[in-house]
Amino acid sequence: MIADKMRPLVENNSAIRAMFEEGKKMAAEYGRENVYDFSLGNPNVPAPPAVNQAILDIIREEETTYVHGYMSNAGFEDARAAVAQSLNRRFGTHFHLENILMTVGAAGGMNVILKTILDPGDEVLVFAPYFMEYGSYVRNYEGVLVVVPPDTDTFQPDLKEFEKRITPKTKAVIINTPNNPAGVVYSAETLRRIAAILLEKEETLGTQILLISDEPYRELAYDGVEVPYVTPFYHNTVVCYSYSKSLSLPGERIGYLVIPQEVEDSRKVIAAAAIATRVLGCVNAPSLMQRVIVRCVDEQVNLEAYNRNRELLYSSLREYGFDCIKPEGAFYLFVKAPVDDKEFCQACKKHRVLLVPGTSFACPGYVRIAYCVSYEQIERALPAFQKIAEEYGLTEKRGKVQ
Amino acid sequence: MIADKMRPLVENNSAIRAMFEEGKKMAAEYGRENVYDFSLGNPNVPAPPAVNQAILDIIREEETTYVHGYMSNAGFEDARAAVAQSLNRRFGTHFHLENILMTVGAAGGMNVILKTILDPGDEVLVFAPYFMEYGSYVRNYEGVLVVVPPDTDTFQPDLKEFEKRITPKTKAVIINTPNNPAGVVYSAETLRRIAAILLEKEETLGTQILLISDEPYRELAYDGVEVPYVTPFYHNTVVCYSYSKSLSLPGERIGYLVIPQEVEDSRKVIAAAAIATRVLGCVNAPSLMQRVIVRCVDEQVNLEAYNRNRELLYSSLREYGFDCIKPEGAFYLFVKAPVDDKEFCQACKKHRVLLVPGTSFACPGYVRIAYCVSYEQIERALPAFQKIAEEYGLTEKRGKVQ
Repeated sequence: MIADKMRPLVENNSAIRAMFEEGKKMAAEYGRENVYDFSLGNPNVPAPPAVNQAILDIIREEETTYVHGYMSNAGFEDARAAVAQSLNRRFGTHFHLENILMTVGAAGGMNVILKTILDPGDEVLVFAPYFMEYGSYVRNYEGVLVVVPPDTDTFQPDLKEFEKRITPKTKAVIINTPNNPAGVVYSAETLRRIAAILLEKEETLGTQILLISDEPYRELAYDGVEVPYVTPFYHNTVVCYSYSKSLSLPGERIGYLVIPQEVEDSRKVIAAAAIATRVLGCVNAPSLMQRVIVRCVDEQVNLEAYNRNRELLYSSLREYGFDCIKPEGAFYLFVKAPVDDKEFCQACKKHRVLLVPGTSFACPGYVRIAYCVSYEQIERALPAFQKIAEEYGLTEKRGKVQ
Repeated sequence: MIADKMRPLVENNSAIRAMFEEGKKMAAEYGRENVYDFSLGNPNVPAPPAVNQAILDIIREEETTYVHGYMSNAGFEDARAAVAQSLNRRFGTHFHLENILMTVGAAGGMNVILKTILDPGDEVLVFAPYFMEYGSYVRNYEGVLVVVPPDTDTFQPDLKEFEKRITPKTKAVIINTPNNPAGVVYSAETLRRIAAILLEKEETLGTQILLISDEPYRELAYDGVEVPYVTPFYHNTVVCYSYSKSLSLPGERIGYLVIPQEVEDSRKVIAAAAIATRVLGCVNAPSLMQRVIVRCVDEQVNLEAYNRNRELLYSSLREYGFDCIKPEGAFYLFVKAPVDDKEFCQACKKHRVLLVPGTSFACPGYVRIAYCVSYEQIERALPAFQKIAEEYGLTEKRGKVQ
């Protein structure tokens, strides 16, 4: 009964989600406390109290048929205006409500913009390591994913390899900063260089190339690192944003697309994106959550909780001999695996530690540790990490290096 | 910048949605009270008080990170179990939670199941008049929509024409009962005959044909008319359900898919549908609304409000000389246009009456009147309808017939 096209997807079901399901089973068997699940980016820090307060207030104050009703496919106008104004305040941009389209999370927004622009055979570039779902999203619209190999020294984009892969068929480039899984943040200089390459290629190839900035982790940066806003760097830029992490609402599926006036054909792109939202069956972003955004647009989760986790986990793993760069953003550590990354994840599972292999991000040899968990889970898991390090002789090696 | 594939969609943007946008503009110009907008199926009857109470209780009682967090792509297990048990109680079915997949409304569910089963060139049959978006949904997955022409005497499916159009490429059939826009309900006898045709064709063609029952209007039936549950009639049946109408939550995007064990390859179809939910970017149905369903699965909007509207509008329009069948379900009247339906809608607009042409449902010569509006709007609009009837000489003709 299922489509031939779906078969590979069913056979290679997301390793991350598979791990999530396995974690649930192990929790049932060993008790939740005794399973150290670092596999999923499911925020442990609760939504800011203002969010739940807003829900209570909206239900009491606003008209029920309005709160739960249809609106334009692009979203409630006040929600779109609130987002535009907040961005303008924070980043000195000049967006109007027309530039904002409320979406079913960033993944919904990504599908909407890819549906809007992709014809069969169009190429979309991504930088490894990257969130594997991008491949499925691109293939949904018969696009072709082109992977720029990773620079595993810095996990910054390898711009020479990038430039080589731009062809007349290149329709879009996806960037993700702060990055899942590597935790790096692209600097203004990096963005300037990406923009320069794209502009030059647009000029010489006579094409339009859309830069899609996937920003679910925008607000999650540490040590005062600045996450530059991408649209001022390059005219053809669209932003996919999500409140999944910034407001800890991943299950609610609320986010937005920014389509600036500077984008080629912007009016048509905006109109087409609203239609794509409709025909993909989303119809609109969930209405109550849009009402919440009107009231909570400048709220943020408690970042300090993630930062504490980051510091504890990073310093402990380094102490045990693990090799990884210190993440500046998001809530992941991307750690070098002492053996094949899939094999290593299997070995960790014996210690009831659940990680995701780097292969799932087109970057074998590494594993992702999601530290959006309780501080106590990290504390409880540290002895297991230490044992694993000892098992692979990492602690010893580290001693020798020093 | 936009895809060639999107161009026709942008050019022929949904007449219904265009009317919705126009209605908003006219309301701003003439005042909301003076525009009689019957164009959109946006419920006017508020959600049952239990829904808002449930939201308040959930926010107060349940853990925030759980309420707003990720769950399995198929949905919270207790929500799926609640749906399965409710269906079993009401219809004597034997569903388990595994048979239920929570979706971003029925439109989201329809996209999920079409993504799950369609390969390029697969044919999907629909009965005119039908909800035009079906065409876009099918084309999203490179399927081919095949339209069975309407029987405008009864607006019941024309089964002879149906049978003729089933080919070896037929992968699915979409039915929608109670029907948008005609308001008819398919009887058990009709469903038996559809099932018999499908079984015979599966046998002779050696294929599997999925019957997709789109049921956003299931609970909206009047005069005690029974809406038979479809799955017991035919093994390969999937149900797309939405709470948009039954709980008046259209903006919230909450519904579910039923994939019974009897469906060929049901385990694979269920697994693939969960994956389709993820890769289409929905990821999961909005989490808070899933929690609401756990508590409100057997709640229902006040049907009597719609029934009052139906009675008033139907009897008045008949009195003025309009020709239409009395709807048994949903909240639409499908009225014969005295001239070309698009022309007629334009003429009605001069009276500030907004309707949708039947052409938008592949059934020219008719117009759809959505009566999910306030009783007062109908009362205020009646003089306009009467004038329109007089303008076209309907009242006079009617007098002569009598």
